[in-house]
Amino acid sequence: STYKVAILTVSDTVTSGAGPDRSGPRAVSVVNSCSEKLGAMVAATAVVPDEILNIKEILQRWSDVDKMDLVLTLGGTGFTPRDVTPEATKGVIEKETPGLLHVMMQASLKVTQSAMLSRAAAGIRGSTLIINMPGNPNAVGECMEALLPALKHALKQIKGDKREKHPRHV
Amino acid sequence: STYKVAILTVSDTVTSGAGPDRSGPRAVSVVNSCSEKLGAMVAATAVVPDEILNIKEILQRWSDVDKMDLVLTLGGTGFTPRDVTPEATKGVIEKETPGLLHVMMQASLKVTQSAMLSRAAAGIRGSTLIINMPGNPNAVGECMEALLPALKHALKQIKGDKREKHPRHV
Amino acid sequence: STYKVAILTVSDTVTSGAGPDRSGPRAVSVVNSCSEKLGAMVAATAVVPDEILNIKEILQRWSDVDKMDLVLTLGGTGFTPRDVTPEATKGVIEKETPGLLHVMMQASLKVTQSAMLSRAAAGIRGSTLIINMPGNPNAVGECMEALLPALKHALKQIKGDKREKHPRHV
Ligand code: NA
Repeated sequence: STYKVAILTVSDTVTSGAGPDRSGPRAVSVVNSCSEKLGAMVAATAVVPDEILNIKEILQRWSDVDKMDLVLTLGGTGFTPRDVTPEATKGVIEKETPGLLHVMMQASLKVTQSAMLSRAAAGIRGSTLIINMPGNPNAVGECMEALLPALKHALKQIKGDKREKHPRHV
Repeated sequence: STYKVAILTVSDTVTSGAGPDRSGPRAVSVVNSCSEKLGAMVAATAVVPDEILNIKEILQRWSDVDKMDLVLTLGGTGFTPRDVTPEATKGVIEKETPGLLHVMMQASLKVTQSAMLSRAAAGIRGSTLIINMPGNPNAVGECMEALLPALKHALKQIKGDKREKHPRHV
Repeated sequence: STYKVAILTVSDTVTSGAGPDRSGPRAVSVVNSCSEKLGAMVAATAVVPDEILNIKEILQRWSDVDKMDLVLTLGGTGFTPRDVTPEATKGVIEKETPGLLHVMMQASLKVTQSAMLSRAAAGIRGSTLIINMPGNPNAVGECMEALLPALKHALKQIKGDKREKHPRHV
């Protein structure tokens, strides 16, 4: 089966029209090419401002109504006052998935020490996996590459596939 | 002094009698052999279904009533809808112990990338240390090995041993 | 601009006068020398007992009233019953900064496996970054060194500097 992926760009600048979405489309194309390897297709994209309520609302809709398998957010994970994507995400997930954060952080730190400034969150809501990605397209690529070895397995498990119930290490 | 260890196998399959506990006994024997190195003894074992209330109840009893020093859970840390061991654990611990999770994840990732699918939690309740382990016996061995260099120290500290109050790095 | 750093030593022994603050002053001097590299100055220091309320109160005052840019706590992050610095810290921060914890743990584990016993927390309250450090001066030095490559950047971001809004990996 083909997994449905949704990509949410979180950015005041883009939403307000004050600037073009320079990193968004490139990040989306990175996710797209990774999605192919994953046997997944991008079924929805959206852009919202850095506002907790806006972010939570679309994450809930994509999970509960549109039954997306994977939701990736882009941006809003840094230290500025407007960066609230992790807080919105933690507000909607039912289960945390800390191992995904560990491998993304580990991979990103190998590229640059400033990766420590990512506050990314990740978790499961219903049968949807939600993962915060950085806004920078190169960083998105590095994070996706770190997740790919286990991401398909993760999506199968979330759907409750019994054959996937006892993989090694879980 | 000898530390008391309790081992909780979390598994619907085993509890319902629908299948033999293939990994449980092997995991218990891994913990047993590690316990010897630790100067600890396995004082109790149990099997419960993947239900938050059942898991919480026995974790609380082993901590508050039976005064176990260390409780290890086996299984239920993955991404399937029935995997709720971390949520039950987070519901009873009073203090988180993220460093234990970091070294277990780091060690497991060196063996296989699918280790990122562990959602293991760990923490302290009263004077009991509770740690989620994977269900896979080999993975349990790798996690225990990663913890062993500091686990005895951890158990001493939890008991309030003053001489153990200021180890390096804490 | 120069960042204002405050250092909080958390220690029953020191507060009660039962013993000299052997590690505190050395840890403070480690932070001091790192602060210079950071273009920061130590604007306040204090010692409090290992009590959640005492720790929370001063963290709130340094953040909300004294508008410190960076607050470093020393000690109280271990496994003994009196170690409550992480719980106090989690009680006042508004945003978690897990990447800082990851690099501190990663760096400390390279020196000694007992680093896994650190339960350090870190996060942002208003425009103040609060980070739990170990009590051991050598360990403090290792943690500060791990943070330094991105710490200035972190403090700029927290102040809302737009030019700092989209660094790589966030
Ligand atoms: Na690591």
